Amino acid sequence: MKYRQLILLSVLMTTIGACLAQSTVIDDFKPASSNQPNKQYPQVNSERRVKAGITAPQAQKVQLDIGGKRYDLTKDEKGLWTGISDPQDEGFHYYQLNIDGAQVPDPGSLFFYGASRWGSGIEIPAKDQDFYALKNVPHGQVREHLYFSKLTEAWRRCFVYTPPDYDKKPGVRYPVLYLQHGSGEDETGWAVQGKANLILDNLIAEKKAVPMIIVIDKGYATIPSQAAEQKAGPPARGAGGISAFEQVLIKE
Amino acid sequence: MKYRQLILLSVLMTTIGACLAQSTVIDDFKPASSNQPNKQYPQVNSERRVKAGITAPQAQKVQLDIGGKRYDLTKDEKGLWTGISDPQDEGFHYYQLNIDGAQVPDPGSLFFYGASRWGSGIEIPAKDQDFYALKNVPHGQVREHLYFSKLTEAWRRCFVYTPPDYDKKPGVRYPVLYLQHGSGEDETGWAVQGKANLILDNLIAEKKAVPMIIVIDKGYATIPSQAAEQKAGPPARGAGGISAFEQVLIKE
Repeated sequence: MKYRQLILLSVLMTTIGACLAQSTVIDDFKPASSNQPNKQYPQVNSERRVKAGITAPQAQKVQLDIGGKRYDLTKDEKGLWTGISDPQDEGFHYYQLNIDGAQVPDPGSLFFYGASRWGSGIEIPAKDQDFYALKNVPHGQVREHLYFSKLTEAWRRCFVYTPPDYDKKPGVRYPVLYLQHGSGEDETGWAVQGKANLILDNLIAEKKAVPMIIVIDKGYATIPSQAAEQKAGPPARGAGGISAFEQVLIKE
Repeated sequence: MKYRQLILLSVLMTTIGACLAQSTVIDDFKPASSNQPNKQYPQVNSERRVKAGITAPQAQKVQLDIGGKRYDLTKDEKGLWTGISDPQDEGFHYYQLNIDGAQVPDPGSLFFYGASRWGSGIEIPAKDQDFYALKNVPHGQVREHLYFSKLTEAWRRCFVYTPPDYDKKPGVRYPVLYLQHGSGEDETGWAVQGKANLILDNLIAEKKAVPMIIVIDKGYATIPSQAAEQKAGPPARGAGGISAFEQVLIKE
């Protein structure tokens, strides 16, 4: 009997726990700042939970895939699936939806390159968001620059941030920061979701940084002759073309 | 009897027609140039048909939605759905997939803004594709420029194309082309899928155009006071903020 009571107690506590967990979600969800214009989902609340939503009347199973975990969504009578994640870390996250086994971008979000693919991303408001906010300060420019790389035998693209008034002072020389993205990202990482331009605009306006140029390139490159060798032999130093990028950066 | 024979003949011809239509699809599909890196689908063949493909093992119905028509995809034993469209017009097309009633971007394509949303697009090779090809000619830059609009009380973004060597010749004055997108697009239309920079780079290199600056802005704007009035009264001239954009363009 004691054993049975223990099981009963355990089941009861788990149930209460689950109910409490549900009831403690604060219902102050708002559309994320990283959404497409006028899109209601995804949303974020003050606990940094993500509420996903997508209309899929005939779907059997829909999941939100964020932060290494999948959350089941539930369908209402109109065919709208919604579901809420655990609290996420502050800042920018890549995520996707899973509809009946298909991994797809969320049509509500803007799209970003990261995790080695173009897909959905969401901005979770951070305590230091003022640092990268779009403010009424002088703004520099982000310039798309195409160049042919003889090493990789291919066209490459980098972004170059030039500080405010750069064009008005053609004789001035500026320090240059070469700013590299993280694993699985590309030259759009710092130029788009990383908001390097807004960070520098703000720092320069507050005189916390001197006006500077930032070069934002992709940290991956493939040298055709080495790629052929790598296929035949053991992997070379600098997996994923990082070593080749070192050469592009230094020589080109 | 004659009537019955006619019906039979008609059914027979329709069946043969359908079989012929199926069998005449030329199987020279290749991944589209507008795909994400290393993605096999979508593909295009020499007839300008689009072959969509997505893995969705548990889905009941998957469709390709392109050119105002939906095409049913069929599933193979591995859960990969594929399907082929009618021949499309040459050039760039917006499209999406429909998975069990959910309208989603195709994770195989790059994403573009058009049809009033960020979503999938596909480049159908055109006879005149040389016109906008990335060539070994001097390249200008596309500059992202942020500006605060007092009329709309909001930050706006435009892209500015500057011709090759623009920075090296600070004293030179250039003609300016104000290039506007089509309905449901924004400032990324000409700057990204429209390839205005490559078109001008090529034309300038061939001396078919003089070096010029191109200003690419979004043709929609909302003036807050007018938006409030419009909600209360009849629609103003220039639906969708086009009239407000005229003021932004001329005054700001």
